[in-house]
Amino acid sequence: MLVLHDNLGSGNAYKVRLLLSQLGRPFRRIEYDVTKAETRTDEFLARNPDGRIPLLEFPDGRLLAQSNAILFYLAQDTDYLPKDAFAQAQVLQWMFFEQYSHEPYIAVARYWLHFLDPGQVQKEQLEEKWRRGHQALAVMEKRLGGAGFLVDGGYSIADIALYAYTHVADEAEMELSPYPGIRRWLDRVAEQPGHVLITQDDFS
Amino acid sequence: MLVLHDNLGSGNAYKVRLLLSQLGRPFRRIEYDVTKAETRTDEFLARNPDGRIPLLEFPDGRLLAQSNAILFYLAQDTDYLPKDAFAQAQVLQWMFFEQYSHEPYIAVARYWLHFLDPGQVQKEQLEEKWRRGHQALAVMEKRLGGAGFLVDGGYSIADIALYAYTHVADEAEMELSPYPGIRRWLDRVAEQPGHVLITQDDFS
Repeated sequence: MLVLHDNLGSGNAYKVRLLLSQLGRPFRRIEYDVTKAETRTDEFLARNPDGRIPLLEFPDGRLLAQSNAILFYLAQDTDYLPKDAFAQAQVLQWMFFEQYSHEPYIAVARYWLHFLDPGQVQKEQLEEKWRRGHQALAVMEKRLGGAGFLVDGGYSIADIALYAYTHVADEAEMELSPYPGIRRWLDRVAEQPGHVLITQDDFS
Repeated sequence: MLVLHDNLGSGNAYKVRLLLSQLGRPFRRIEYDVTKAETRTDEFLARNPDGRIPLLEFPDGRLLAQSNAILFYLAQDTDYLPKDAFAQAQVLQWMFFEQYSHEPYIAVARYWLHFLDPGQVQKEQLEEKWRRGHQALAVMEKRLGGAGFLVDGGYSIADIALYAYTHVADEAEMELSPYPGIRRWLDRVAEQPGHVLITQDDFS
């Protein structure tokens, strides 16, 4: 069986739980407490030198890190990845956008506000995260104001990748009311067959 | 002909110039001065709402952003991308690592030190960039200390993606002497047929 080295609070790990659920692929979770550096032990670093979850372990021992690389691999030849090469490139374009221009701001602001003690958060740094996070949301809104999903052809792993932290933007104390296209898209993603919540921890 | 919306100082744009050269695909460059916000004009934002180069424009008008998504598209069915699906996922794993754990530290430190006035750089922030940049180099060294290229099977777009800013780490005032595997790999990449320098601006 697939083993997901996981953390329930992580949006990056949630992406993988969501796609595996929608694909109907059974998996076993191993939970790591990131705040206790459980992904920086010698044992974990031997599996992933980058020291991060999610990490997917295959029955034959192969390992794959980086949430969006895992999504791309699992989605091969399924309805969650368009067949056309240019559409696949557009999926990757959105997923690289997510890791570069979205996650470092919205996910980090959420981590600070939702998982750390208030005293550990610096106001000036938080405001910079919010500012850049809203820039990313504005880019998404330009697309989603006039389209059902991020890439033509329907729901794909691009939507999963960007849904993960966008749908918990409130935990980063970021308001989505200026983005009606994004809000409609969040509902649309949540209505997809096999959808699971970020908090779901039982996949047996 | 392909049009590359480009900036000669950018390692992200260099990735695309390097692959296009190695593929023998002719292209025309349009240079943007990023320090003058030339990628944030209404005209540019209409092409790429994210306001970044590189942006590749196809003869039929299609546009593709995000350097690593562009590499993945151009490398389809060429020797620069392995055929095996898992090896392709490993290529993507390294490319997402590059954009998340490497570029935001090494490329940003280089930008501050190489392109900005010294007075604009904050020492404490720079030291944090260096610290995280060295973490990324240590992850690369774990692989390259014992392997010729980042993914089994030879030189690929994963190597192009990570070469771009690693080979100019000196411009970020980062020392590569602790990483003998990386240094041998830099030489190996530079010896690949069709290699061009980051400073080359004539592709006619």
